[in-house]
Amino acid sequence: MSKRATLCQVRFVPAGRTVEIEQGATVIRAARQAGLHINASCGGTGVCGKCRVLIKEGSVDGGISDKLSPEDVQKGIRQACSSLIRENIIVELDDKAGLHGGLLSSDVPEKHRAAMHVFDIEELQEEGIFIPPIEKFFLELPRPDFSDRQADAGRLLRSMDEQYGERHIQISHHILKTIRRVFREDDFRVTATLERPVNKRFRSRLLQVQSGNWTDRNYGIAVDIGTTTVYGQLIDKLSGQVLAEAGDYNRQISYGEDVISRMIHAEKPEGLKQMHELVTESINSIIDFMLSRKHIGRDEITSITLAGNTAMTHLFLELEPHNIRRSPYVPVSTMFPPVRSTDLGLHLCSHCSALLYPAVSSYVGGDIVAGIMGSGMYRTEKLSLFIDIGTNAEIVIGNREWLACAACSAGPAFEGGGILHGMRAGAGAIDDFSLDPVTLEPMIMTIGAKPPLGICGSGLLILIATLYENGVIDQSGRFDRDLETSRIREGRSGYEFVLVWAEESGAERDIVLTEVDIDNFIRAKGAIYAGVKTLLHEVGLAIGDIEQVILAGAFGSFIDLDSAMTVGLLPELDADKFLYVGNGSLMGSRMSELSNHIRRDVVKTMQKMTSFELSEVPSYKDQYVASLFLPHTDETLFPAAAGRRRQMEQLKKVADFH
Amino acid sequence: MSKRATLCQVRFVPAGRTVEIEQGATVIRAARQAGLHINASCGGTGVCGKCRVLIKEGSVDGGISDKLSPEDVQKGIRQACSSLIRENIIVELDDKAGLHGGLLSSDVPEKHRAAMHVFDIEELQEEGIFIPPIEKFFLELPRPDFSDRQADAGRLLRSMDEQYGERHIQISHHILKTIRRVFREDDFRVTATLERPVNKRFRSRLLQVQSGNWTDRNYGIAVDIGTTTVYGQLIDKLSGQVLAEAGDYNRQISYGEDVISRMIHAEKPEGLKQMHELVTESINSIIDFMLSRKHIGRDEITSITLAGNTAMTHLFLELEPHNIRRSPYVPVSTMFPPVRSTDLGLHLCSHCSALLYPAVSSYVGGDIVAGIMGSGMYRTEKLSLFIDIGTNAEIVIGNREWLACAACSAGPAFEGGGILHGMRAGAGAIDDFSLDPVTLEPMIMTIGAKPPLGICGSGLLILIATLYENGVIDQSGRFDRDLETSRIREGRSGYEFVLVWAEESGAERDIVLTEVDIDNFIRAKGAIYAGVKTLLHEVGLAIGDIEQVILAGAFGSFIDLDSAMTVGLLPELDADKFLYVGNGSLMGSRMSELSNHIRRDVVKTMQKMTSFELSEVPSYKDQYVASLFLPHTDETLFPAAAGRRRQMEQLKKVADFH
Repeated sequence: MSKRATLCQVRFVPAGRTVEIEQGATVIRAARQAGLHINASCGGTGVCGKCRVLIKEGSVDGGISDKLSPEDVQKGIRQACSSLIRENIIVELDDKAGLHGGLLSSDVPEKHRAAMHVFDIEELQEEGIFIPPIEKFFLELPRPDFSDRQADAGRLLRSMDEQYGERHIQISHHILKTIRRVFREDDFRVTATLERPVNKRFRSRLLQVQSGNWTDRNYGIAVDIGTTTVYGQLIDKLSGQVLAEAGDYNRQISYGEDVISRMIHAEKPEGLKQMHELVTESINSIIDFMLSRKHIGRDEITSITLAGNTAMTHLFLELEPHNIRRSPYVPVSTMFPPVRSTDLGLHLCSHCSALLYPAVSSYVGGDIVAGIMGSGMYRTEKLSLFIDIGTNAEIVIGNREWLACAACSAGPAFEGGGILHGMRAGAGAIDDFSLDPVTLEPMIMTIGAKPPLGICGSGLLILIATLYENGVIDQSGRFDRDLETSRIREGRSGYEFVLVWAEESGAERDIVLTEVDIDNFIRAKGAIYAGVKTLLHEVGLAIGDIEQVILAGAFGSFIDLDSAMTVGLLPELDADKFLYVGNGSLMGSRMSELSNHIRRDVVKTMQKMTSFELSEVPSYKDQYVASLFLPHTDETLFPAAAGRRRQMEQLKKVADFH
Repeated sequence: MSKRATLCQVRFVPAGRTVEIEQGATVIRAARQAGLHINASCGGTGVCGKCRVLIKEGSVDGGISDKLSPEDVQKGIRQACSSLIRENIIVELDDKAGLHGGLLSSDVPEKHRAAMHVFDIEELQEEGIFIPPIEKFFLELPRPDFSDRQADAGRLLRSMDEQYGERHIQISHHILKTIRRVFREDDFRVTATLERPVNKRFRSRLLQVQSGNWTDRNYGIAVDIGTTTVYGQLIDKLSGQVLAEAGDYNRQISYGEDVISRMIHAEKPEGLKQMHELVTESINSIIDFMLSRKHIGRDEITSITLAGNTAMTHLFLELEPHNIRRSPYVPVSTMFPPVRSTDLGLHLCSHCSALLYPAVSSYVGGDIVAGIMGSGMYRTEKLSLFIDIGTNAEIVIGNREWLACAACSAGPAFEGGGILHGMRAGAGAIDDFSLDPVTLEPMIMTIGAKPPLGICGSGLLILIATLYENGVIDQSGRFDRDLETSRIREGRSGYEFVLVWAEESGAERDIVLTEVDIDNFIRAKGAIYAGVKTLLHEVGLAIGDIEQVILAGAFGSFIDLDSAMTVGLLPELDADKFLYVGNGSLMGSRMSELSNHIRRDVVKTMQKMTSFELSEVPSYKDQYVASLFLPHTDETLFPAAAGRRRQMEQLKKVADFH
């Protein structure tokens, strides 16, 4: 179901491994994918000049710098970090890599990523549930005459019933003020915009009446209100297609990166209003951007569906978040009525309805419910584990029949927080890494192939997994002080590993990973794994029962499954059981924009979700303590990871022998 | 069922008639009630000095002026027009009155008025339907703890269900913003104000949540938006009692006394807004007045129910009235959703819901529907005729099973309009009248016993009936030119009758009734009677089938049934079949304020009402033409009136003979 770019074959010799990789990827990324290590510490800027490779067949773009002599270039030598793959090629790694790198790598499996889940509109159409919650109807109303002098409003309702079987429609005072004129502008030919209720037994609301036929223009907006970033999509409600997309920082970030500090600010005088206005500004900037890209009028947007965690939803709706962060953690509401978008300060029209995703609890919010919808988990028979990893990791276990959920306070390590040289996943962030197991020389890859600035969440995971697999750190995350390398040293806050020397870094300082960083990481992954184990235990199941793992959130898209299992973040399961849903919250919002049937399912799903407060489950603490090791105190839970580490130890001994 | 003040017996000699009359009434009113004529032309100000009577037993207040000598006073002579009755008395009319006045009067029956219909709250209570549409509920919410961390909103809904069985409650975004704080102000003891839907299958709306218990204070306002006057009542929704009442001119009157000229103004730029604001000002002045009289806070008013004709309702709601006055007379709507009272500019709080009475058509409005409710016609088995007389007279025929309605354009005669010296029913308006059949000297009574200024509607009716009965005018309303009296003369616009000479009038001119006035009156009463006849005919019934006549409107309260039948305005039926409902519109509004069951019945009733457009019923024109006589071309329809006139002719001959 995943949408792929053109793939090129890259064959590495003498290792004898072939991988397929997207056109435009670098040779170093291909080597990484093939499980081959190339020393490279400048992040792909060509500064270190270590990553020389020979392009034996085919050609690449780039890969040339002043570190290469004209003769080298002539021979076909390139720098792997900046060589862009355009066609099928054969690459020879240099002797050194051939010697023990190739040998060691030959049994390192390919990297695994979760398959991408894509939302299928055709499926909605086939099931006949592609009926948006806000729909337009064209009516040729009978003209009033002496035999039919029904009032304008009654005339409209009668025609809605007669022509479309739509009954129980609520007309607001506001609409009544407009209809007389509208009816007579185009000889009683009108378009009525109707908002359907979630519960069929209640009334539909008439949102707008226009003269003429406008049924071919009905647009909506889906929004994910993330703590860090707000994403939006402009949707054609007739075709279901996404016409434009945009993202913007959540401007609340100026009052703190985490949810708690924003909630604290919201308790100050005017604070809640400020928080509301800031996030609304972000949403408006997205709306403005998307509309400016398309020939679509602001008044043609009939609805906007938004999903966010419970705190974000409260702040956006200007609901007091005070008790979300205070025991026993009670939000104002988990269900939210449709609101006129103008009442929320959105740059949309008063006839545009803002629909908010319901939440389950203070810490399992609408973004998770939307993710459950977007990922299809709400309708699968497979026993699924849904994990959205961020500062709070939300976990849901279940299937179409039942859903158990919990939030674990993972801390900000996965977002680069609490890590000495941690950073968000932006240009220059180390996002991939491998290690020469003998020399301990690293292969550093950065986002955008920029000089390394720090370590992002996904990079951190791979770093720690690789260091652990190579025996550089032990089960409790301590560096092996006996290794002979200048890269391990005692720094200000204890032992650390130098990833990038200052001269090759973009930060003009050594970029290091400290034992404290590793500790924070272990606590974070331990909280999540313990959450999964505890929740499974609460519902009487075990890891082996999981038939599908759904990863959501920005981190989820980059996660290296093998690394995640190596460190004990994700349960050890076959890679093909993993699915990546991307921004599940945005996908769920889009689905709700397109199908009122799905909005009904949202409520049903939300009502099926049983929320567990992990801090009150006595076994959680034990599970947590047991998880504070790499991968876990109980190695039998991660047999493959343990096997990989043992194998690596063996290979290293062989390599040392050579 | 009527509520009466203390009554005093007044015995007139030598006529030998005794009447009971309210304490504080004048002797002249008592004489009128006894069917006795006393010459009196100054309206009770004592200026003419003609109405001398002798108080033989008991005493009166007042009745003394410089027209009486000290000796007269000593003897017990008083002026009847200004003598206030305090106790049982015996009054001797002077010789002249005794001679033919007494004789002629001896067979004139007492005046008949319709019995007053009073709204019975106890009945509502007994039937168990005394459940106001807006009700308050006290809740002691369970405090959240670790075993119960439901959101605030869900907690409230759960308790409403558990404690009161109230489900399907809609909570607005606005309310969600308040509840967290409110819940915690008085330890989760809260009062929820709920608006019930008219249709049970739909949702209730939560209007307000307050901390503490406020269920003992729930007030409402009922309003009749009349074209001329706006009346309001402040209602205790717990007891059903009216705590205060007030009335104010409809300030729209500055743009025209009639509905049409206001609708015309509403079509001008800003005109509709002005019309809305003017009537809102009137309603606000009433609200302010009533609240200032009671220790009731503005925020304790949870609902206001308003009824008015279709044009008034449109102008108040700022709905375009353009097509109400244009063929085929289509209003914007006949049903109106609840509106936040602040959205209408009312001096009430945002949690106060404004409920508008539905209408049937452009010319049968919510005031009539409210009258049908207020009068109990909607639930009676008796075949009833409902008449609300004003510029437009609305007629409804039917019972609990069916209702046929129509509006007749009666013209403004009944409101004193189109009458040379016509005026509204205010101080100085001639509202009662009798005639010395021989001398044609009048007995003039005015509202407030002030110098006569003009003729109000009810006075006009009595005037014309009396002139007709006395043969002063004929069947077609022409004065008998042969009568020897200076009071009949040819004026600028034809023949006229001088009611009050300039020196006795408050207007410094002769007050007259012209043939043109009589013509206008006949057209008005003819339109109404023809409407009744036509509507009866359309439903296959006759006058004789009518079991009950319900009179509504300000005019209805003063209507003299005998006069009304004499002129052929009302069908000739036994006086005990007539019921006066007073301001039926106000009464209906009050009923709706007190019982949601009745609000449901309003919709059912409105849906039962079939509207007939008289101008399109071919027989209406014939009926109208036939009605342009006193009482009618077909005298067999008014046998008693015809008999009275014949008897009077006989008596006059006898008197002439004396």
